[in-house]
Amino acid sequence: MTVTTSTSEAGLATVAELAAQLRVDSIRATTSAGSGHPTSSMSAADLLAVLVTRHLRYDWDHPRSPANDHLIFSKGHASPLLYSVFKAVGVVAEAELLGGYRRFGQRLQGHPTPVLPWVDVATGSLGQGLADGVGIALAGRYLERQAYRVWVLCGDSEVAEGSIWEALDKAAYYRLSNLIAIVDVNRLGQRGPTELGWDLDAYAGRVEAFGARTLVIDGHDLTAIDDALATAAHTTGDRPTVILARTVKGKGFAEVEDRNGWHGKPFPAAMADRAIAELGGVRNLLVRGQRPVPTPATNANGSPAGGGATLPRYAVGDNVATRKAYGDALVALGAADPRVVALDGEVSNSTYADEFAHAYPHRYFEMFIAEQQLVAAATGLAVRGYRAFASTFAAFWTRAHDFIRMGAISGVDLRLVGSHAGVEIGADGPSQMALEDLAMLRAIHGSTVLYPSDATSTAALVQAMAATPGISYLRSTRGAYPVLYPAGEAFPIGGSKVLRASDHDQVTLIGAGVTVHTCLGAADLLAEEGIAARVVDCYSVKPIDAATLAAAVAATAGRLVIAEDHRAEGGLGSAVTDSLLAAGRPDLQLAHLAVRAMPGSGSGTELLAWAGLDADHIAAAARKLIATD
Amino acid sequence: MTVTTSTSEAGLATVAELAAQLRVDSIRATTSAGSGHPTSSMSAADLLAVLVTRHLRYDWDHPRSPANDHLIFSKGHASPLLYSVFKAVGVVAEAELLGGYRRFGQRLQGHPTPVLPWVDVATGSLGQGLADGVGIALAGRYLERQAYRVWVLCGDSEVAEGSIWEALDKAAYYRLSNLIAIVDVNRLGQRGPTELGWDLDAYAGRVEAFGARTLVIDGHDLTAIDDALATAAHTTGDRPTVILARTVKGKGFAEVEDRNGWHGKPFPAAMADRAIAELGGVRNLLVRGQRPVPTPATNANGSPAGGGATLPRYAVGDNVATRKAYGDALVALGAADPRVVALDGEVSNSTYADEFAHAYPHRYFEMFIAEQQLVAAATGLAVRGYRAFASTFAAFWTRAHDFIRMGAISGVDLRLVGSHAGVEIGADGPSQMALEDLAMLRAIHGSTVLYPSDATSTAALVQAMAATPGISYLRSTRGAYPVLYPAGEAFPIGGSKVLRASDHDQVTLIGAGVTVHTCLGAADLLAEEGIAARVVDCYSVKPIDAATLAAAVAATAGRLVIAEDHRAEGGLGSAVTDSLLAAGRPDLQLAHLAVRAMPGSGSGTELLAWAGLDADHIAAAARKLIATD
Repeated sequence: MTVTTSTSEAGLATVAELAAQLRVDSIRATTSAGSGHPTSSMSAADLLAVLVTRHLRYDWDHPRSPANDHLIFSKGHASPLLYSVFKAVGVVAEAELLGGYRRFGQRLQGHPTPVLPWVDVATGSLGQGLADGVGIALAGRYLERQAYRVWVLCGDSEVAEGSIWEALDKAAYYRLSNLIAIVDVNRLGQRGPTELGWDLDAYAGRVEAFGARTLVIDGHDLTAIDDALATAAHTTGDRPTVILARTVKGKGFAEVEDRNGWHGKPFPAAMADRAIAELGGVRNLLVRGQRPVPTPATNANGSPAGGGATLPRYAVGDNVATRKAYGDALVALGAADPRVVALDGEVSNSTYADEFAHAYPHRYFEMFIAEQQLVAAATGLAVRGYRAFASTFAAFWTRAHDFIRMGAISGVDLRLVGSHAGVEIGADGPSQMALEDLAMLRAIHGSTVLYPSDATSTAALVQAMAATPGISYLRSTRGAYPVLYPAGEAFPIGGSKVLRASDHDQVTLIGAGVTVHTCLGAADLLAEEGIAARVVDCYSVKPIDAATLAAAVAATAGRLVIAEDHRAEGGLGSAVTDSLLAAGRPDLQLAHLAVRAMPGSGSGTELLAWAGLDADHIAAAARKLIATD
Repeated sequence: MTVTTSTSEAGLATVAELAAQLRVDSIRATTSAGSGHPTSSMSAADLLAVLVTRHLRYDWDHPRSPANDHLIFSKGHASPLLYSVFKAVGVVAEAELLGGYRRFGQRLQGHPTPVLPWVDVATGSLGQGLADGVGIALAGRYLERQAYRVWVLCGDSEVAEGSIWEALDKAAYYRLSNLIAIVDVNRLGQRGPTELGWDLDAYAGRVEAFGARTLVIDGHDLTAIDDALATAAHTTGDRPTVILARTVKGKGFAEVEDRNGWHGKPFPAAMADRAIAELGGVRNLLVRGQRPVPTPATNANGSPAGGGATLPRYAVGDNVATRKAYGDALVALGAADPRVVALDGEVSNSTYADEFAHAYPHRYFEMFIAEQQLVAAATGLAVRGYRAFASTFAAFWTRAHDFIRMGAISGVDLRLVGSHAGVEIGADGPSQMALEDLAMLRAIHGSTVLYPSDATSTAALVQAMAATPGISYLRSTRGAYPVLYPAGEAFPIGGSKVLRASDHDQVTLIGAGVTVHTCLGAADLLAEEGIAARVVDCYSVKPIDAATLAAAVAATAGRLVIAEDHRAEGGLGSAVTDSLLAAGRPDLQLAHLAVRAMPGSGSGTELLAWAGLDADHIAAAARKLIATD
């Protein structure tokens, strides 16, 4: 049976047929692949059938149309359902669904990613899709001023993630009536019943208390679904909507309906045949729903990537904190590029993001103390073409590690800035000291990791970040240190600066950020003893300047002192040695100074000395390398 | 004025004096240190004065008494208040408070850590103290069966963290009436007003919906506080209690009361003098509250650390997944050691933690999909002396990175197990593939990182984890691979196994986990060509077996192929090269095979080949090293 429905609102009889088709196709796709989640798809098939045919405004032939609604599967494991929808609207062929799902080299992956043009963000780590949707809804409501809605299908298990509540809290705070969450309450998680089961009242109480308009329905009653979606689609209120749909896992195939033990399991072939027969057989309906109302292009297109910004200028020798230079540079970028937006996690007066907030309040989003949502909001804004800079204390980016990782899978451009790094912060103690952030960010696929030592290089690198794809990270420093570079100096990503060099250097001192200053101090101490030391500012930790490092190794008989205000694992030291070892067979004599014990409070100076990162320790390490030659 | 109050219930007049003293001492400590948070301490001083004198049951001379209540400052930045309490009960001297706070080498750090014997867990990364308290309350209610209560002081800003809602959700699910959160709603965060300000009804609605008994009070009305704490102290119900206290930041000093801009700022000396005068001057009350009811020792003491366990045995050559061996070994440990407990994040049928759950249901805690709370609950259980093993998919430990980091600062022993690592998992795609976990865990201070290749070594290492202090992590593999080692073989932490060696080895192949098997396959391919390859199983990634690696380098002319199912940064490759470079000046010719692009779906075999980690690619890399010599 092939029926093409081109009316803007398919009748419910057609919708019922479509729902059966989505179930059948979910079964066929997973059985053919030998893996995947048919039962988690079947519970939500009615919801999607009504949504896609009667409420979603989407031009399937132009997925980049700015007026399109957005559809996010926060329960990414229900990808068979999503891909079956793509087949039903005619953008994915049956052959691809049955032959490509979960196969090597194919785009219909186990969990959706933006490899598919109709997918905004990668999902599969639960509790993230709704949070990303908040970012898209922020863009729609406050920046693009588009009428699109953001529809997010959530699972009930993922509601246990705190990130869901961060998302709802922010959706209510920002009055995102353009955000609609549909929770597929099928009562069963992977290993058994969920915490709240079918206690829809309990869910409703929580959701309502968090400020959402809440609609509780039978998720298999097409009329009820239609009414709820119609209500939700009216976005004139000031609250997000959460539709709580009571559903049955495996709905439509009595053998598995509401039965534990069928999570993430495809049906064997004979069982799939029985299921398909019970569902009325294979169908090939082709349906299209509503198209979006055309709107003029938004300001999210065509502006330069920070190129025209007039960066702040600092006088060499003045003491300026790099975190301050971040705020200054961000304001400059904001002046030149309307696509630059900023977010912070309630510490903007420490990160200096508040400078941007004061200059461009309509392009600043306060995320309060919710780092997961901070990254997710930036992700959603990036999906809509904005150049989002997000900042907090560097230590607290660990809170959002999974979101950063998923951002890399989504392929979005995220610009993260972490202040208050390392033991240098002093009295606040170890909970506030980022000592693992460089390792974390280096291991993110395609990332760029920057750690400037002075205000001039910071401003230049913030500008460079605006044009950097993927996940970029800049680590700033709490204390004020001398400006080392004159205004206008270039700091290409992947470069470094050789601050001291002669033709008789005996050792190379490699630092980044605060340790550039202690390396310079060590070079001064060594110079007093007649020892010439080369000093390299590795402001670009990833990619790192392999050529300059190799030249330094050659010039100083392989003697390297690497000093980093970070744990010994995975940071600057690894970046340097990975680079040298990849390039050849270096004869290295290495002293790697890093934070190797648990710090307490103290002054930054005391703690840098305690960690062995001050000028005295660096000089001592250099002397020892030379002596033991 | 020095007044010693040793009655079990100080009168409210004395309490008022104590509250003033706590404020004065918080001001004195921060002004003397030149940093810290006086105003955030002053808002909660009345709450603590009533709690400590009239409700907390604590033997200050015996902080390890199992019957003691627990007091956690989730708002760790209010450490001046906590330390002022310690002075008031006589365990910290005035000289230490005024001369040691936030100073180098001192124990009164900027945020509390268990360096102090009255502190259970390190706080300062917001939203974690309550979550840790859930773990302690679980121990008290379900394992120790002690009558202690867990009192947690929370800030209002931190309620924006999703982890707070994960904690309340689990507290309600597990009916933790022994958990009492006191939220200091002072309306002002670091940079300005909080989201909900003084809308206590909004807070109450959320907290109540999450299943807590909710008490809303004026946090400066001593009688109201006393009544609320008395109500909360009756833990006979089945709900946790949340006391929402409306307070004024900086309370007691009119110049700063309820004024923005005074977060985290000590008062200058003259201002401190005015504040202290307004508060009635310096006091030196010495107070003690209730002592705990003595109880018999619990089973959390004295049992052996897995030593007596009879480990499962596997036949060499059988295909067994290491994740299955984890479950088997955990059951064996559980039989031998009543202190072993297990937790999982709703994937126990994938991690095989369900074997323990079935064998010892009363020592298993299901945390559902809430990885932050999963680590926090394990932390709290560890505080009470239990040997907690927590498991989820390896990729999702990134969700709890900040909690793991703080666990290291707390100095607790956490045993984390991550299944489904790397591209080996196959069809589920990149969202489910741990590719950053080794880098993340290696950079945690004092951590142990294990990645066994077979069932025998897995079981032995799980047993070793039971006796391993600090944060230990074991990475398990989805697929079943041949058992390589006979039962009974020893696998010391810090060791490795040389699986192939001869006196004419030309190259060393280093793997861990699944790549041990592909390295063995590569050695077979090379052997067919007459090339002898040494194969090292680096099952202990941190600490790594430096001696064996150095010997292999010496024996094979520095030719190393390192193969890891992980990103190139910070994992096995870094562990190997860090070790070799720290030991001397190795002449290394390195091929580092790792996952250097973004994977999709496919079979594990296809994806290992795609990533260049199969036997063919490893053999090719070895040949190239030999050829380019």
